Amino acid sequence: MSPYDPAHAFVPYPEVPVSDAGTGPLSGLCFGVKDLFDVAGYPTGGGNPIVLARSGIKSRTAPTVQRLLDAGARFVGKTVTDELAFSMTGNNVHFGAPLNGAAPSRIAGGSSSGSASAVSHQLCDFALGTDTGGSVRAPANHCGLYGLRPTHGRISLEGALHLAPSLDTCGWFARDVQTFARVADVLLGPDFAPLPDQVRLLRPTDVWALSAPEAVAALAPALQAIEGLLGDAMPVEARLDSFEAMYWAFRYVQGREAWMTDGPLLERYAPPLGAAVQQRLNWSRTVTDEQFAHATAFRLRFRTHLAALLGHNGVMVIPTMHDIAPLRTDTEEAVEDYRNRSTESLCMAGLSGFPQLSMPLASRDGAPLGLSLLGPAGSDRGLVALAERIAASL
Amino acid sequence: MSPYDPAHAFVPYPEVPVSDAGTGPLSGLCFGVKDLFDVAGYPTGGGNPIVLARSGIKSRTAPTVQRLLDAGARFVGKTVTDELAFSMTGNNVHFGAPLNGAAPSRIAGGSSSGSASAVSHQLCDFALGTDTGGSVRAPANHCGLYGLRPTHGRISLEGALHLAPSLDTCGWFARDVQTFARVADVLLGPDFAPLPDQVRLLRPTDVWALSAPEAVAALAPALQAIEGLLGDAMPVEARLDSFEAMYWAFRYVQGREAWMTDGPLLERYAPPLGAAVQQRLNWSRTVTDEQFAHATAFRLRFRTHLAALLGHNGVMVIPTMHDIAPLRTDTEEAVEDYRNRSTESLCMAGLSGFPQLSMPLASRDGAPLGLSLLGPAGSDRGLVALAERIAASL
Repeated sequence: MSPYDPAHAFVPYPEVPVSDAGTGPLSGLCFGVKDLFDVAGYPTGGGNPIVLARSGIKSRTAPTVQRLLDAGARFVGKTVTDELAFSMTGNNVHFGAPLNGAAPSRIAGGSSSGSASAVSHQLCDFALGTDTGGSVRAPANHCGLYGLRPTHGRISLEGALHLAPSLDTCGWFARDVQTFARVADVLLGPDFAPLPDQVRLLRPTDVWALSAPEAVAALAPALQAIEGLLGDAMPVEARLDSFEAMYWAFRYVQGREAWMTDGPLLERYAPPLGAAVQQRLNWSRTVTDEQFAHATAFRLRFRTHLAALLGHNGVMVIPTMHDIAPLRTDTEEAVEDYRNRSTESLCMAGLSGFPQLSMPLASRDGAPLGLSLLGPAGSDRGLVALAERIAASL
Repeated sequence: MSPYDPAHAFVPYPEVPVSDAGTGPLSGLCFGVKDLFDVAGYPTGGGNPIVLARSGIKSRTAPTVQRLLDAGARFVGKTVTDELAFSMTGNNVHFGAPLNGAAPSRIAGGSSSGSASAVSHQLCDFALGTDTGGSVRAPANHCGLYGLRPTHGRISLEGALHLAPSLDTCGWFARDVQTFARVADVLLGPDFAPLPDQVRLLRPTDVWALSAPEAVAALAPALQAIEGLLGDAMPVEARLDSFEAMYWAFRYVQGREAWMTDGPLLERYAPPLGAAVQQRLNWSRTVTDEQFAHATAFRLRFRTHLAALLGHNGVMVIPTMHDIAPLRTDTEEAVEDYRNRSTESLCMAGLSGFPQLSMPLASRDGAPLGLSLLGPAGSDRGLVALAERIAASL
C-alpha cells in the first residue's frame, strides 16, 4: 500500500508480499483492488466493520486479481468501498470518503470510491471495481476516468463479495485509454460478439433529455467529434414503457437480491450501518415475491428491446450521469436525489446486462463529465477499441 | 467465540485455537477479552474499523491474557469495546451496542461494554476490561456485576491499546464474588499494602450527596449491612477544593493523554468516528500545556489528600455511579449528562490511582446499582476479600 495516502483511498491494511509474475503485458503497471475481492494475506472488509471482523485473512486470491498479477501488474493495496457496495456516494461512515482527485470539492462517487480516488490521485495506474447499479460508472464520471461496466458475467467475480448477483459486474478504472486498453486485453480477451468496423451510432434522445442542459451542452463537442469519426448518430428512443418503470424494475431486482445477500448478516449481527445504506436495506427487505417476479419479467422484455435496438452493430452514445458529481458539502438528501435521478439511465446496462464504457471527454464548472458507449452483449473490447480511436481523434 | 451471541457482546472474529494450560486455579472457567488486548491469532480492533484494518493478526498474546490461560481459563472470544475506549455508553457506531443482561431496556455502559454484556448474559464466567475513567465501574454498575478498577499499574496492560496511560487500568467482571475472587488471586496475587483485619470504614457525605436520592435510598440496606459487618462508617468529606475541580483535572489529564495516544492516527487517517467520541477528541486536542500542568499538580495534591484520608486501613464506601443506567432510548445528550455527572465521583480512583471495587448489591426500578469500596493503593485483594465477607453476610 502507498505509504502515504493523501486521498484516503486505501484501507490501511498491513502490507504483505503479494507475488506477481514480474513480466507480462501489464508489467510496469500497479493497481489497487476494491475491498470486495479476496487477496491472499489480506482480509476482505466490504466496507463494513463486522464483515471485516468476520473475514479473517484470506488464503486465496480472487481469480480476476490473480489474472492481473500473472500479467505482471503490481498490487499496491485494497481500496475503500462504500458499505456493502450498496451506495453511489463514496462516503463510508466507517472507512471514510476517499477524495476525488479531479474535482476535490466534489464526491468521488461509489461504491468503487477508493479505486477511482486512487487512480485519479495517481496513486496507482488502474484499479478494480465492481458495478451493480453504477458503482464503476458513477466514480468514473466524477473523477474523470475511463471506466467499464462489462457484459454481465464476462469478468469473474469469484472470490468477491456480492451485492445483487444478477446485476454485479467487475470493472476497472484508468486515467488514459492506452492503460485502460492494456487491462482490457488481459481481463476481456477477444469479444465473443465483435463489433464490425462500421458501427451504427445511436443517440437516444429520451436518455439525453434526462441530463441537465448544462451537461448536455458540455458534452456536445465530444459527441460531435465522435460523430465526425463514426458517422452521425441516429436519434432513437431507448426507454421501455417509461424510465420510471425501468427504474423500479432495477430497484426491485437489486433490492431483493441485496436482501438475499446481506439479510442473514443483518439478522444475525445487527451491524450498525450508515443511515442511507440501512434505509435501502430496510426497503430491500420489503420487496415482495410479486414485485420481484414482475421486475424480472420486465427486465427480460427490456433486454429484448435493447438487443433489438442495438442489433450486432449498434452503439449508443449517452451521458454517463445526468450531471457532474454533487459537492461534498451537499446534503444527504441532495446526493440521494442525484442517485435516484442518475439511476434512470444507469439501469439500462444493469437491466440488459450489456456493457457500458464511460470516457472522460468533457467537463463543466471544472468538474469532469463522462460520455458513455453502450453496446450489445459481448462487445466490450470493441467499445474499448472505439474509445481508443475517439481519444486518438481528439 | 460463542456460536450464537444474542447479546452482540463479541466481535465476530473467526475462531482460532488459543491454547490454555487446561488445569490450574481457573480451570472450568471461560472468559472474554475486551478487544483492546492482543490475543495471538486475532486482530485487535479497539472498536474502530481503521484500527482493526491496521492491526493485522497478532502473533503474541498480552501477558495478562496469557496469565489467565496459564491458570487454566478458556478463552471464548474478544468483546466489543466502545470506540478507542473513549466512551462510557456502550454504543459503538461501528460495532453496535452490546445488550445489558441485567436490565435489557438500559445501556450496558462502556467502554468495556461487550465484556460486561457477555458476563451478564452468562456467555462467559468472567471477562477482562479496562478502566480509564469508569470503563469497568460503569458497566459493572449497569449490568449488575462485580467489577474492579485496580491500583494503577498493578495489572499489566502490555499488549493492549492505550487511551490515557497514566489513568488506564486493567480490570474484570464476574457475576458472583467467588468467581471474582478466583480471578483476583491469579491477576493480583498478594497485596503489597494489605488491609488490616479491622478496617476503618469511611462514608464520604459529599460523594453520597452527588447521587440521586432514589439511588441513595436503594443502596441504604446494603450500606447498613456493611456497617453491621465492619462497624459504623465514619462520615468524612472526600473532595479536594470541589468536585468540579476534580472533574476538570481528570478531564484535562485524560484529554491530553488521549490526544497523545490517538492524535497521530486521527491526523493520518481521518477515520470517521462516532459523534460523541469525535467531539471528545476534538476537545482533547485543545488541552494546553498549562492546563495539563495544573491538572497534574492538582492530581498529586488529590492523591496526597486521599492517601491521608484513607491511611493504611481506611476503606471508603460510595455509590459506584450516581444512579442506575440510562435507558437505551435516552437522548445522546441525556447519556452525556449522565456521564459528566458520574465522572465527578468516578474520577477519585482515576486521579489517585487507588483501587475501587463495585459490588452489585442493590437495584431500583428493576435495574442494578453498584456499591463501591475504594481503598488505598495496593489494597486490591483486600477489597475483594471484604466483598467476599459482605456477600457471605447478606
